[in-house]
Amino acid sequence: MNKAYILILTVLTFIFQTSGQTKASSKDYKNANLSIDERVEALLPLLSLEEKVAQMRIFHANIGVEADEKGNLKLSEKVIEKLKIGIAGIKNPGEHLSPVDAAKLNNELQKYIISHNRWGIPALFVTESYNGVDAAGSTKFGRPMTSAASFNPSLVNRIWDVVGKEARLRGMHMCHSPEADVVRDPRFGRMSEAFGEDTFLTTEMVKNAIIGVQGNYEGLGKGTHIGAVAKHFAGYGQVLGGSNFAAIEISERTLIDEIYPPFETAIKEARTLGIMASHGDLNGIASHGNAALLTGVLRDEWGFDGYVVSDSNDIARLYYFMKVAESPEAAAQMGLEAGIDIDLYAEDSYAYLPEMVKKNPALEKLIDRSVKRVLRTKFILGLFDNPYINMEEVQKGVRAESSLELAKEADLESIILLKNEKNTLPLTKNKSIKIALLGPLLKENTKAMFETVAGKNVSFISEKGFQLTDEKGGAPKLLERDPKAIANLVNIAQNADVTILFLGGDEFTSKEAYFSNSTLGDRATIDPVGAQDELVEKIKALGKPVIVVLKHRRTLSINMIAEKADAILDTWDLSEFGDESTAKIIFGDVSPSGKLPVTVPRSIGQMPFHYSMKEINFKKGYLFLEDGPLYPFGFGLSYATFEYPDIKLSSSEITPNSEITASVTVKNTGTVKAKEVVQMYLKDEIGSVTRPDKELKGFEKIELNPGESKTVTFTITPKMLEFTGIKMEKIFEAGDYRVMIGTSSKNYLESNFKLKN
Amino acid sequence: MNKAYILILTVLTFIFQTSGQTKASSKDYKNANLSIDERVEALLPLLSLEEKVAQMRIFHANIGVEADEKGNLKLSEKVIEKLKIGIAGIKNPGEHLSPVDAAKLNNELQKYIISHNRWGIPALFVTESYNGVDAAGSTKFGRPMTSAASFNPSLVNRIWDVVGKEARLRGMHMCHSPEADVVRDPRFGRMSEAFGEDTFLTTEMVKNAIIGVQGNYEGLGKGTHIGAVAKHFAGYGQVLGGSNFAAIEISERTLIDEIYPPFETAIKEARTLGIMASHGDLNGIASHGNAALLTGVLRDEWGFDGYVVSDSNDIARLYYFMKVAESPEAAAQMGLEAGIDIDLYAEDSYAYLPEMVKKNPALEKLIDRSVKRVLRTKFILGLFDNPYINMEEVQKGVRAESSLELAKEADLESIILLKNEKNTLPLTKNKSIKIALLGPLLKENTKAMFETVAGKNVSFISEKGFQLTDEKGGAPKLLERDPKAIANLVNIAQNADVTILFLGGDEFTSKEAYFSNSTLGDRATIDPVGAQDELVEKIKALGKPVIVVLKHRRTLSINMIAEKADAILDTWDLSEFGDESTAKIIFGDVSPSGKLPVTVPRSIGQMPFHYSMKEINFKKGYLFLEDGPLYPFGFGLSYATFEYPDIKLSSSEITPNSEITASVTVKNTGTVKAKEVVQMYLKDEIGSVTRPDKELKGFEKIELNPGESKTVTFTITPKMLEFTGIKMEKIFEAGDYRVMIGTSSKNYLESNFKLKN
Repeated sequence: MNKAYILILTVLTFIFQTSGQTKASSKDYKNANLSIDERVEALLPLLSLEEKVAQMRIFHANIGVEADEKGNLKLSEKVIEKLKIGIAGIKNPGEHLSPVDAAKLNNELQKYIISHNRWGIPALFVTESYNGVDAAGSTKFGRPMTSAASFNPSLVNRIWDVVGKEARLRGMHMCHSPEADVVRDPRFGRMSEAFGEDTFLTTEMVKNAIIGVQGNYEGLGKGTHIGAVAKHFAGYGQVLGGSNFAAIEISERTLIDEIYPPFETAIKEARTLGIMASHGDLNGIASHGNAALLTGVLRDEWGFDGYVVSDSNDIARLYYFMKVAESPEAAAQMGLEAGIDIDLYAEDSYAYLPEMVKKNPALEKLIDRSVKRVLRTKFILGLFDNPYINMEEVQKGVRAESSLELAKEADLESIILLKNEKNTLPLTKNKSIKIALLGPLLKENTKAMFETVAGKNVSFISEKGFQLTDEKGGAPKLLERDPKAIANLVNIAQNADVTILFLGGDEFTSKEAYFSNSTLGDRATIDPVGAQDELVEKIKALGKPVIVVLKHRRTLSINMIAEKADAILDTWDLSEFGDESTAKIIFGDVSPSGKLPVTVPRSIGQMPFHYSMKEINFKKGYLFLEDGPLYPFGFGLSYATFEYPDIKLSSSEITPNSEITASVTVKNTGTVKAKEVVQMYLKDEIGSVTRPDKELKGFEKIELNPGESKTVTFTITPKMLEFTGIKMEKIFEAGDYRVMIGTSSKNYLESNFKLKN
Repeated sequence: MNKAYILILTVLTFIFQTSGQTKASSKDYKNANLSIDERVEALLPLLSLEEKVAQMRIFHANIGVEADEKGNLKLSEKVIEKLKIGIAGIKNPGEHLSPVDAAKLNNELQKYIISHNRWGIPALFVTESYNGVDAAGSTKFGRPMTSAASFNPSLVNRIWDVVGKEARLRGMHMCHSPEADVVRDPRFGRMSEAFGEDTFLTTEMVKNAIIGVQGNYEGLGKGTHIGAVAKHFAGYGQVLGGSNFAAIEISERTLIDEIYPPFETAIKEARTLGIMASHGDLNGIASHGNAALLTGVLRDEWGFDGYVVSDSNDIARLYYFMKVAESPEAAAQMGLEAGIDIDLYAEDSYAYLPEMVKKNPALEKLIDRSVKRVLRTKFILGLFDNPYINMEEVQKGVRAESSLELAKEADLESIILLKNEKNTLPLTKNKSIKIALLGPLLKENTKAMFETVAGKNVSFISEKGFQLTDEKGGAPKLLERDPKAIANLVNIAQNADVTILFLGGDEFTSKEAYFSNSTLGDRATIDPVGAQDELVEKIKALGKPVIVVLKHRRTLSINMIAEKADAILDTWDLSEFGDESTAKIIFGDVSPSGKLPVTVPRSIGQMPFHYSMKEINFKKGYLFLEDGPLYPFGFGLSYATFEYPDIKLSSSEITPNSEITASVTVKNTGTVKAKEVVQMYLKDEIGSVTRPDKELKGFEKIELNPGESKTVTFTITPKMLEFTGIKMEKIFEAGDYRVMIGTSSKNYLESNFKLKN
């Protein structure tokens, strides 16, 4: 076809489209009776090169999508110009509006987009949602690390189901969540956005998050849920030094056996619509230019058919940051060839593709490949057929009572009791006592929440005393200790019967470190900052009970707190109702049942330090340092006590084609109803490659009344024993294995079985 | 041949041998006119299986090789039994004897061995020698890390030449040195046994050490030098957490580009006779069972034809420690198949080979392969022809005056001036001043050495004050701060004009962590231990000059010392004359010229942290921590000042087949004669894989009188620009490169050139 002919055809098609007189033909992409693939195939050839490339770009709403004073859509010139040829998507439109206003705005925006590009292609509205939709008026849940501590995947599923619904109701279609990264370095400022150090736990949680947010996949087309984008593929949690944007060094074997599984499950089992690539490199190869990873592993090996989106500006950064491309154009080509379908935000990367195709027409095939994936996603989400939000459902659907209750329920299952000397906890509501609520992590409404929970016998005095950081005038600074403030707090504690200290880290001591060096978030030490150790020491010296509530977003080496506090509740970063939930645990309304989703080291100098390291890593300790972690992975106390008798194995032999079961009957030998996370770890006694000291391969959360027993049965599958052998193939190896079932990675029963080939 | 026939032949041969009436036939292994390979081929078939396996084992002299009261050889029953069938070698015979007594003993021992095995095969006597022969009466040089600080390879060559001679003179033939490991983790207790963090510096030093100790290879056959065993292949410096015996995780690319080069050079250029394998694993594969490494890389790729020796008991440990073999026999087979020729020490590993061959005759071929390598080594060392030491040469050859002077010369080039506020140093000898020599690293003879150097005007008072550790009753413990001792030191300093503090770490705060957990040596923190920071703070508060002399065996984060001291001399671990050399530097006899062979971090939390990390690793700092290292790699001050004008490039273009040169004319603009290490770093601006921030690729130590200029010309070869590309092949990449020439890795001139393909 010559150009003139194409032009005429295009003009004619345009007239038919916009005149509204066309009827869906059997090959019309608007025909909802066709399969999605047929519709994509019908639409793609209609698009100009520029229109195609527009379907490979997402821009942020902050460049000019907002509501005017009357709440009506207001677009900047820049945005209007962009939308003429369509767009893959827009990040966070209406994020600062109430759900109802956002829904209205997004309906208007979608309508504008559809009617202003030739083919009426709708846009994806995208958000983040790791602890609730990242927008005003949404239910705020605990962070992923917090919910990981619940060891309750169905809870995670229900949380993300709410997130998916609330997001869709405000007009969103995709979220750049969840993080499927295995995070093992507490220096990393983003660690609490992921589900912890363990591959299996992370896999279970990511799977449930995606299934939840996508409404079991069915919610996508029904228009009730949104698509997930699992990130950051791959190895992002392994940045050297825990430093965002740094290089990654990891053996291929560890990558396959420990880092890939959450992503593989996200694709194969949870059917995530999207995958986001990782900022840095992977053993020298920039992730955004890594075809072996983004096409080889993702698509050829795992059969992923969704889209891959770049992290913010990361394709362009292949040139100016990663220094692996000689020009922005070379960077764009590298990203395209590697398999990145959508360029997030950049104005200087995929924007160049139309010009580049003129010189190198072969690129258009790759563009087509990516555009199909994006269009396919839009069809899956039903956006061509049903692009708008039903406004009537928004008000009642967002922040529903059941959602808020769920946030509280999740909190109560996520709080970890690390220490409880002489049963300091729970406190009684029945005696007239005076409690001091002190410390830098106290919130304004903490006292009110505690009063509501504790009832009238208990009186509270609260005083924050000092802040940890100050962000006045730019980058946050650590504040110097304030002796007066400390003395004041000690004085208040002196006049109370019990002190509850709110310690840990604030929003500035652990956060995402952005690209610009002025925005730091990673740390070189994980000791509590400021005068917190001093405070706990001085208050403990008063001789009265001291309870520490830890709030934080990175693992902290709380040596002094561990030594001095009578009781410690580790709450990480709970929902918006966190202090209420904490009070309920403190006063015994509910027994704590959270378990550590990470190893707590004694010192950053012990890094790397996760419970599933190779057995040989645990053979030698350090000079002048007590051996082992401060608290082990999977650890968490209860107000009840649990008895674990023997493990019963259905057989002492497993084969590559058979399963066996391991059962324990756990008894609540305490005096209160409580939940317990029963954990199963497996260990290969001898392997052709060095093997993990142990690996979590099953867990179940059960609730037991005092005196009650329940039998928990875990299935041990051959798949659980599989690993990457010397020849870099997954293998089963005959020999001796150990099964450990217990209450933490350090406290368990054990039994042995054999794998026979 | 049937067995009876073999027996008869063997008996006949034995009679001929021992009767001494045989004449060397053309195929007799005793015929020195044959080539070594011919002699090996002639000898091997004569050996029984047991005799062959004996040539694959080394035992330690401590199982029963000693001198009786009269200085005559005394062997235990166990040793006598072993020697009946010969032995590959014996570790450390006569180590506690004077060189003369050791030589005598070893002559007797060799004679005994030769005359008590059927074929008169001599044994290898083996030692360690990283800072001099590890035996009584040898010259003690600074540790490798210390000599690395000299940035003077010819000095290292001369040191190891002395070591080789002293070792051979006391009857040694091989040393389990040098360490070719690149050490980048200061937690690792053995770091000072190697040459630092940099691949190029380590390569240069290892090459010169081996050439030196082997007497330029010619010394081996001449009987004047000994064979080297470069260790630990591969990645031993990369143990996770700096913890000995731990696992190693490293990308194949980093391994090839950064860890292999010292070994490759040791083999190809320095012709090392031996290689020792590494304790741990390498990305999951136990190094002692890694055929791809020990045979594939070492022999097939690099053409190594010496022998590979296990580290102590490490073949057996494949079973009971690494857990990669199902039995000791399986471990032995794994080691044998991987390519380990000699089993060091174990009684439960290669000892089983004769029995194993009965079941699996194919193993004998592998045994033959290894035995040939061992026998070959013995022929290279001339042991069949000239097995004994000429006693007359021992006395005058060991601890020769020139050797002791060399130790001092090396010290003077290795001391690093880290700080010199307001030219605190050098101190003058001309004024009558009183100097306090204080601190836990002070030695008994320090004062005497300082007095000798300083002359009569200067008076000294010395007081150690306190120790850092105490090893009474087992494992060393850190000692509590002793307020009285500190007060006493402050008091002494109060009465002096200047204080020199001897701080750092002692023999227990950094050492090799042995297999048993009771012997620790690695640390989780690199802050100075005990009250050292307090001491420097209090003494500084007196308002008089404080000079700190650092002695240590691991990199220390000396933040407080760096802030408070007026001058800091970093001496690592010098020769036996270390304090004398330090005094000479302090009093200006010589200007310091050492440079840091490692990056000094501000905190262990910055790990990994070496100057040649990927550029992207340096893009972001940590919250609340000053950016960058405390002191950068290659840094070291002088009493002179040096002016670096422009870099002159012979061409701004290089091709894969051409070289260019980069020259600078450095001028001493100071007032004293001084040496300076001119350093050249290269950087690839854009690479297909993420590239190092910069890499040392040349250095030259020059001496300049005040006002004098010298031109230093570095050749930039295409080989220097080579790296392992995406396809895991070594490549050159066209594009922009930067050359930086200067006084440290942070302070340099720069220029640009292009590589054209």
